[in-house]
Amino acid sequence: MQSEKILVINCGSSSIKYKVFRMPEENILASGLMEKIGEENSHIKHQVPGKIFEVNIIIKNHIEGLEIISKYLRDKNLGVVENVKEITGVGHRVVHGGEGFNRSVIITEEVLKKIEEYKNLAPLHNPHNLAGIMASRKLFSGSTQVAAFDTAFHTTIPPVAYLYGLPYCLYKDSSIRRYGFHGTSHRYVSRRSAELMGKDKYRVNVITCHLGNGCSITAVKDGHSIDTSMGFTPLEGLIMGTRSGDIDPGIMFYLAEKMNLDFKQLNNLLNKESGLLGLSGISNDFRDISREIKKGNERAMLSLEVFCYRMKKYIGAYLAVLGKTDAVIFTAGIGENVPLVRKKSLENMENFGIILDEEKNNATIPKEREISRNNSPVKVFVIPTDEELRIAYDTYQFVLKREH
Amino acid sequence: MQSEKILVINCGSSSIKYKVFRMPEENILASGLMEKIGEENSHIKHQVPGKIFEVNIIIKNHIEGLEIISKYLRDKNLGVVENVKEITGVGHRVVHGGEGFNRSVIITEEVLKKIEEYKNLAPLHNPHNLAGIMASRKLFSGSTQVAAFDTAFHTTIPPVAYLYGLPYCLYKDSSIRRYGFHGTSHRYVSRRSAELMGKDKYRVNVITCHLGNGCSITAVKDGHSIDTSMGFTPLEGLIMGTRSGDIDPGIMFYLAEKMNLDFKQLNNLLNKESGLLGLSGISNDFRDISREIKKGNERAMLSLEVFCYRMKKYIGAYLAVLGKTDAVIFTAGIGENVPLVRKKSLENMENFGIILDEEKNNATIPKEREISRNNSPVKVFVIPTDEELRIAYDTYQFVLKREH
Repeated sequence: MQSEKILVINCGSSSIKYKVFRMPEENILASGLMEKIGEENSHIKHQVPGKIFEVNIIIKNHIEGLEIISKYLRDKNLGVVENVKEITGVGHRVVHGGEGFNRSVIITEEVLKKIEEYKNLAPLHNPHNLAGIMASRKLFSGSTQVAAFDTAFHTTIPPVAYLYGLPYCLYKDSSIRRYGFHGTSHRYVSRRSAELMGKDKYRVNVITCHLGNGCSITAVKDGHSIDTSMGFTPLEGLIMGTRSGDIDPGIMFYLAEKMNLDFKQLNNLLNKESGLLGLSGISNDFRDISREIKKGNERAMLSLEVFCYRMKKYIGAYLAVLGKTDAVIFTAGIGENVPLVRKKSLENMENFGIILDEEKNNATIPKEREISRNNSPVKVFVIPTDEELRIAYDTYQFVLKREH
Repeated sequence: MQSEKILVINCGSSSIKYKVFRMPEENILASGLMEKIGEENSHIKHQVPGKIFEVNIIIKNHIEGLEIISKYLRDKNLGVVENVKEITGVGHRVVHGGEGFNRSVIITEEVLKKIEEYKNLAPLHNPHNLAGIMASRKLFSGSTQVAAFDTAFHTTIPPVAYLYGLPYCLYKDSSIRRYGFHGTSHRYVSRRSAELMGKDKYRVNVITCHLGNGCSITAVKDGHSIDTSMGFTPLEGLIMGTRSGDIDPGIMFYLAEKMNLDFKQLNNLLNKESGLLGLSGISNDFRDISREIKKGNERAMLSLEVFCYRMKKYIGAYLAVLGKTDAVIFTAGIGENVPLVRKKSLENMENFGIILDEEKNNATIPKEREISRNNSPVKVFVIPTDEELRIAYDTYQFVLKREH
């Protein structure tokens, strides 16, 4: 298999994450993070094997950011290529692909137009994703540019699951429906679980739990996403680091009236001050919460229990929707590293065929593995996810095709 | 058992529903509905066996309304008593009992103070409930006044289920939590199902589905409510006649920004224009929707399917929470009368021990009955509910005690 250098770019509102992979070997040649773009104290952290380079400089915008990245990648000391042409593919994470993209695609003028259209649905993400793409097309003009959408894997969700109990015209005219996110991760771990079970990827029903700083859970039937907990935005569903997940919408009217909060304040409250941070009063990070639990902090324990209780309800809901389930998969930071979360979410579900192996669950091995008992009808897996690597693979596939 | 005449009063924002029962015989001696109180064309419909009396007059407020009711009840033609003293008990439906009332109580000064306190949590309901109580205490001064709370049955819900993923201080300082409603109905049908199964009421796990104009579903463990779909307000949970139930809170920020809706308009949209009405574009009434389904109307069918899909997800979630479930119970207008809803909500759940008997399910007998197959591990029942009758019973019990 020919070897290619693939750059993966993830542009946030004021940040750029990037990685250069040698594919298909999966070697990470370089990686980095730019933060506070557009602010006065932008920061860059750039890494190549054995070296970390950090610097504070003013980065005006994403274009300037990518120019700096391209320079670093060609640098004698910190670089990985002599000429940018060696980067044969650039994969871009794009948050919202609306109803239009059910897979990763090569970025054409038409694709750009659609991503532009979906700005409306993801005003905090798509404009920055787009800025990154535009800059990348100039800086890496010879390379194959690919867009990987967070929503793509979820385009198979049927109307019963994507429609809200709202006037139908809000779907028809304003595209308000469940889209779901983290699709790259849900797709990967569901495919991997099929391989681990020795089954055809289109013949498995699984429930995939992506528990990172954002958390979502997906019901996968015959290899296709048929429901997911994140909705029109990434705010719905599970409790997350700082996001509330599901709440009674009536609470917002109450807070507006009784506490005089406006939409901006409510948005901030639900997205930035809620979730594990709000419940625990400690942190949005499970490592901090776990530490406090060990010290006997009751609020810390309560926040974990509320988090797991909601997980269990979603798992139950998706078991019912799937009818028959082959496996439950945990991935991302919390999913891979917090045995107590896996245990509590699946507690007392023997009647549903889920029997966790306590010992396997408690082992802290950072690799994919089964953690259910051998006689558990529903398998439970921990499968580490790597969204950048998935995007690198998608991009690599297109590069291979183009070369032929 | 001594026989008593019990008046049950349900004061809405601009309406009063009332019934006089002879208890414990359960005979309805009189019933009525006043509507558009405080408007220019108030309407009264008063019924005694064999007679219906209707009239349009201006009714200024709930006090005046109850004065008229008391007059009718003493009327030679339309009445049921010669002297109001014959009404030995008056039962009041009170929507919100906060965390303070876990059962029906005799209304004392202290109880009044608490209901007053909870006005804050149910501004659309408690003030009117309270107005009805105040008037009733004057007009039926000799009778035992009892308050039955919609929230009472749900006070056993544990913190993992009543806390939202919000800052903990919103619970501690502002009482924002899941309360749940329809408690009188959920309690009654869960108790009845235990009797029908020949089991102790504190030894059954059941899921009760109250599907009326408002819809809610409750997980009952060992006879106690441990979770329910309505939350801080009756807007959360299942899709209802005109209410959306669960939505991504992010949708509200989007509608505010893109369509310039303010809180009042959003409140109206989610409470009055959504649910079955919004999805179907036809009606909030399942009878109309069923008629259209028969004609082949696709949107009508879609609205039913979305309604049932969400039902199924909640049933799955509560099956997981309960671990082992003895029965699922359907009640109220839709729950009692729409076989297709019961069928679709429970479809393909044989793996969870739920096997519906198609024939029994399709029979349209308006009385309590089992509709699962004989070999279904989880029983399914239709149990008609009558909240007024339940309140009459609670009131009757207090009257009996007082007489001793």
